[in-house]
Amino acid sequence: MNYSFSNRIAALQPSIIREILKASSGQNVIPFSAGNPAPETFPIEAIRTFTQTILEQDPVTALQYGITEGYGPLRDTLTNHLKTGYNTGSASDELFIVSGAQQGIELACKVFCNEGDTIICESPSFIGSLNSFRASGARLVGVPMESDGIDIGKLEHALRTEQNVKLIYLIPSFQNPTGVTTSLEKRKAIYDLAKTYGVMILEDNPYGELRFSGKDVPTIKSLDEEGLVIYVGSFSKILSAGLRVGFVLAPNEVVQKMVVAKQGEDVHTAMLPQILAYKFMAEYSYAEHISSIREVYRRKSSLMMDKLKEHMGDSITFTRPDGGLFLWCDLPAHIPMLDYAKTAAASGVAVVPGTAFLVDESEACNAIRLNFSTPSDEQIVKGIEILGQVLKQY
Amino acid sequence: MNYSFSNRIAALQPSIIREILKASSGQNVIPFSAGNPAPETFPIEAIRTFTQTILEQDPVTALQYGITEGYGPLRDTLTNHLKTGYNTGSASDELFIVSGAQQGIELACKVFCNEGDTIICESPSFIGSLNSFRASGARLVGVPMESDGIDIGKLEHALRTEQNVKLIYLIPSFQNPTGVTTSLEKRKAIYDLAKTYGVMILEDNPYGELRFSGKDVPTIKSLDEEGLVIYVGSFSKILSAGLRVGFVLAPNEVVQKMVVAKQGEDVHTAMLPQILAYKFMAEYSYAEHISSIREVYRRKSSLMMDKLKEHMGDSITFTRPDGGLFLWCDLPAHIPMLDYAKTAAASGVAVVPGTAFLVDESEACNAIRLNFSTPSDEQIVKGIEILGQVLKQY
Repeated sequence: MNYSFSNRIAALQPSIIREILKASSGQNVIPFSAGNPAPETFPIEAIRTFTQTILEQDPVTALQYGITEGYGPLRDTLTNHLKTGYNTGSASDELFIVSGAQQGIELACKVFCNEGDTIICESPSFIGSLNSFRASGARLVGVPMESDGIDIGKLEHALRTEQNVKLIYLIPSFQNPTGVTTSLEKRKAIYDLAKTYGVMILEDNPYGELRFSGKDVPTIKSLDEEGLVIYVGSFSKILSAGLRVGFVLAPNEVVQKMVVAKQGEDVHTAMLPQILAYKFMAEYSYAEHISSIREVYRRKSSLMMDKLKEHMGDSITFTRPDGGLFLWCDLPAHIPMLDYAKTAAASGVAVVPGTAFLVDESEACNAIRLNFSTPSDEQIVKGIEILGQVLKQY
Repeated sequence: MNYSFSNRIAALQPSIIREILKASSGQNVIPFSAGNPAPETFPIEAIRTFTQTILEQDPVTALQYGITEGYGPLRDTLTNHLKTGYNTGSASDELFIVSGAQQGIELACKVFCNEGDTIICESPSFIGSLNSFRASGARLVGVPMESDGIDIGKLEHALRTEQNVKLIYLIPSFQNPTGVTTSLEKRKAIYDLAKTYGVMILEDNPYGELRFSGKDVPTIKSLDEEGLVIYVGSFSKILSAGLRVGFVLAPNEVVQKMVVAKQGEDVHTAMLPQILAYKFMAEYSYAEHISSIREVYRRKSSLMMDKLKEHMGDSITFTRPDGGLFLWCDLPAHIPMLDYAKTAAASGVAVVPGTAFLVDESEACNAIRLNFSTPSDEQIVKGIEILGQVLKQY
């Protein structure tokens, strides 16, 4: 059979990046290329106890079909948490549960974009979201990142000149891949532009709770008086990535459409993970747990930055994130970045070439992304030493 | 904000059926309208034990990110089970895990259909799938069901005359809503037509293991020599609906595209439910468990059919399914069906008007769907008695 795939799926290009990542996915490779939360941050003992309690006390709720909107007590707890902790959410908003933040991002695109409609993205941005938009047939326009967030002048230019812009997709806190946090000033400017041009903002905040230095910056959603912001959050980095529980806070009218779309995708998010997430928030020492995760990432990021300084400090520049899981390192201009990444992989250290995160992979980029949550401390020490040695070969 | 939704989402119409269902969703209503598996079929004790073991022995695998294709041991076990138990699957096929069968159905549509492309469906058919196709922007063409499956002449006519047909969507065993099982002869005829017209078949088989009388009919996928069939199965009716684990068996090349599309939707299916499903298949008395579920549904369906005979036997006709969860009852021609369903709801019994399952809800239909898995035996006895009384009012 000669398959005739839909245009949006047929257009997905295999990427040279994927080949590099495949080559560096072996067992003995030091994984600076991943984005996994550190397994020591999973509250395993609590998950065991809660699971047992759930399956003792109310197994049928955990095992039977649930409603598409999600488990009521979890929705209520999250709504309160966002309001009291982050002044995020209003009476005209509603919160529903998704199967990981990725689903919230995909649903926002499905609900607002026809094939060929435009999504403005930070460039670089999270490859998972870019590929999800591509698979939905959206057209991507990248706007460069600066050290305090997206370039506002170029964002305005894109809004003024691009056709059928439906969403502005942003990761304002500890961005993946750059580690950059968008300043409050820029968040306000972005919101005002969205209002002026009548475009929705898709605010992706998977790392929001992972601040290990500096002070919280208000979410863009907390500025939202016109119902312009779809806010997406996740339990992947604070409880467990494998449980696939995220949430969306958005204007009621938008949520109603997203829920219908979600129903057609997976009916509802698995119940046992939802009830676990609820118990984690309601019955566990949530604040204490979050602060212990922050401590882990403060240590790991500091260790990685110290070692980068020690082994490559003269040649490279890198972001100093206040949270999240990633550093963004600019290699010297004379280093061929893709070649460097291949050599590093061959030497036992996997990094992601920065081009992977660009809207247009053929654009110039001499950066790599380093993840500090997945490797052990020993791997960080060893791996950065190797990256330094590889650099000296050029 | 005046939201401008995508065409496919904006086109979704609120249905009068949903209003009737809402009106009949109260606590004290007898639920013949649902599609929930009977909670007594959940192997709760085993799920408790397996969950504990998983979280003791290898918690990190259950809680960390997994690959999009799904948990390897589960994929292998399912591949073997389908091959040895149902002669289904070949070397050029591949199996991957989805977040419930619904996701497999949605992904097939995403991968093959551009907006406006046509999917041929049995009419009536499962409303969840129809709505999923609609939310993806596909155009639906219904072909009437007969007592042994879809009308082959009309299927051929549709294939010959409709534009851009990409999928034929079928539930060949114990169909939802009619309870009809497509004969082997018709399965072969459908396959041959798909081959002739170069159209993929989407075979949805959520109830396949739930046969309580008669003999197994080979799956359409077992006839598939050309790589035309996407086969979708589920754990919802044999293990737990709330865990959201299903699977897709399809030609490699198709699976590769579906996996990329799935990655953009939810990255992967929750790991703990996947490992649970694996242990259920590999370490539990699977065959015995299935046969105990069949026994439950044999009893419940017989009870419902006996009571229908007793209270309404002179006036109605209904299908006698060999498995699954549903009966399809044709009311006498003089009964206004929607009005009957409303009156039944007001009298404490919820049924689904047959029109809900039609591609075109405005078509004539004088049938209702009755579910026998959700209500208790007592509710079946009481509920059918009430339905009979309501019928006598006309």
